[in-house]
Amino acid sequence: MAQGGGRVQRAAVIGCGTVGASWAALFLVHGLDVTATDPAEGAEERLRAFVEGARAQLAGFGLTGSGRLRFVPRVPEALDGAEFVQENAPETEALKRALLAEIDRLLPPQVLVASSTSALLRSAIVADCARPERVLVAHPFNPPHLVPLVEIVAGDAATAARAAAFYRGLGRRPVILRREMPGHIANRLASALYREAVNLVAEGVASVADIDAALCHGPGLRWAAMGPHMTYHLGGGAGGIAHYLAHLGPSQERRWASLGNPALTPEVQAAIVAGVAEEAAGLSVAELEARRDRALVGILKARETVAPDPAQDGTAEE
Amino acid sequence: MAQGGGRVQRAAVIGCGTVGASWAALFLVHGLDVTATDPAEGAEERLRAFVEGARAQLAGFGLTGSGRLRFVPRVPEALDGAEFVQENAPETEALKRALLAEIDRLLPPQVLVASSTSALLRSAIVADCARPERVLVAHPFNPPHLVPLVEIVAGDAATAARAAAFYRGLGRRPVILRREMPGHIANRLASALYREAVNLVAEGVASVADIDAALCHGPGLRWAAMGPHMTYHLGGGAGGIAHYLAHLGPSQERRWASLGNPALTPEVQAAIVAGVAEEAAGLSVAELEARRDRALVGILKARETVAPDPAQDGTAEE
Repeated sequence: MAQGGGRVQRAAVIGCGTVGASWAALFLVHGLDVTATDPAEGAEERLRAFVEGARAQLAGFGLTGSGRLRFVPRVPEALDGAEFVQENAPETEALKRALLAEIDRLLPPQVLVASSTSALLRSAIVADCARPERVLVAHPFNPPHLVPLVEIVAGDAATAARAAAFYRGLGRRPVILRREMPGHIANRLASALYREAVNLVAEGVASVADIDAALCHGPGLRWAAMGPHMTYHLGGGAGGIAHYLAHLGPSQERRWASLGNPALTPEVQAAIVAGVAEEAAGLSVAELEARRDRALVGILKARETVAPDPAQDGTAEE
Repeated sequence: MAQGGGRVQRAAVIGCGTVGASWAALFLVHGLDVTATDPAEGAEERLRAFVEGARAQLAGFGLTGSGRLRFVPRVPEALDGAEFVQENAPETEALKRALLAEIDRLLPPQVLVASSTSALLRSAIVADCARPERVLVAHPFNPPHLVPLVEIVAGDAATAARAAAFYRGLGRRPVILRREMPGHIANRLASALYREAVNLVAEGVASVADIDAALCHGPGLRWAAMGPHMTYHLGGGAGGIAHYLAHLGPSQERRWASLGNPALTPEVQAAIVAGVAEEAAGLSVAELEARRDRALVGILKARETVAPDPAQDGTAEE
């Protein structure tokens, strides 16, 4: 993809918090040169430290590409020569909107500009771009150098396909939305589940730790291998999803009607905070993150998924 | 646990569909003798075939116990000498209620009787038991010989602890509910997520396969390592869940308000069935189940989870 049909050799990473730093690491181990920028105090040091740690994790997957990392003080320098841009600025609509318009203005028209935005809509953040058709949402899941999902919202199918090919080349699993939705897909699914997880705390059904355990030793474990529709397909036995929906659809609808609609009152928040502290058992967030990453590395190396992966035949590759 | 402080040597499995057969396999590879019964035509052959396959899977975990499997025609013979009973009859309240009353009447009072019920409430199904306090819900996730979760609903804490110790001895991860809820914990979480997954199909946001992929390459992957509360704890950065709730709680509540409330209309069902067929790409349910089980075996061997496992100090062991 990118200019003249060649592969991207050089990417710009705009904004180097957790998400941007993780993208940078992924690009680098796939051999891309990365030029990064972030206005925060100490951003370069944090970026380099993160990349060093992530490189070590990714080496375990045989990903040892030696892209070169440069950190520059301002956006225009970061864009100089960039063939792909990943923007990871704070989730403020006005800020993203102005930043994407600036990036769009500075770059040749064939370069794709991808925003990692989680909470904002593409239509809103491209509003001031002169060439909005090359600006897309490519939302990863934390940490993007390990979690394969990239949710793509683009202005047209051809742009979505170009971006998907780029991310597929980095070992990611792009998913293309047919139309934009607040929260895209995965965070909507997560939010729906979290509402009931909060409800179960609010209703005193189990401890926070046991609610978490019920997910990750039960359906969460299965969901690392297959999604919800496929899960109920197998739940339908030999008759599959059609049998499931015909026989258990009504009980799903009754269950939906019984789900909670909690509010995050001060009392509920306090119960969650206390319960998480008990579950964490004295481990800091940094220690828990290190455990998460070790767990993800282990699972990713081991797993296969149930659904056949869609054709990676390169037809979308330019 | 069980009689006189000894360990369970002999379990009865009442009902040998998918769930019962999977429990039987788990018990056998942990060295328990199993006496099983099921009134269905061909039940013994299906049970023995399932157990043979499951034994091969579990041997990969070093679980090679050689419990003896006996199949008997009726419930009273299955209970003869049983030190633990796992009941897996169809999910019909009247049937379970009568069956549990019969089991309760035939067994010495110290033997625990666990129902695998997914959809029914303990209070309803123990209603005709003379000694309801020893009858509990112990709900597994399919397939129970691989997925560790067991959700326990008991009449008192001592019974819950005895049952939890039994399942922990089989490598399961018991979770004890403080009070009964329709769907227990995990199926409520799954149902909440599924509602939004159906909504995204109904709204035409993405294909069924892409919605499934968004889960299992994104949050589902992470949920194999940690639950939703811990996930947002890490999402809060150094400030953890308290920071997350203070800063992003309001946007979670807005997201909750934006989630869909779909109906499983004939059109929506048809879209799901067609989408699943496309995702399955010609594989049968049996082939997809085999893939699922290979995936689960791989993930289980590889993973560690983020939260420290609660004390397995045997204090709950009797």
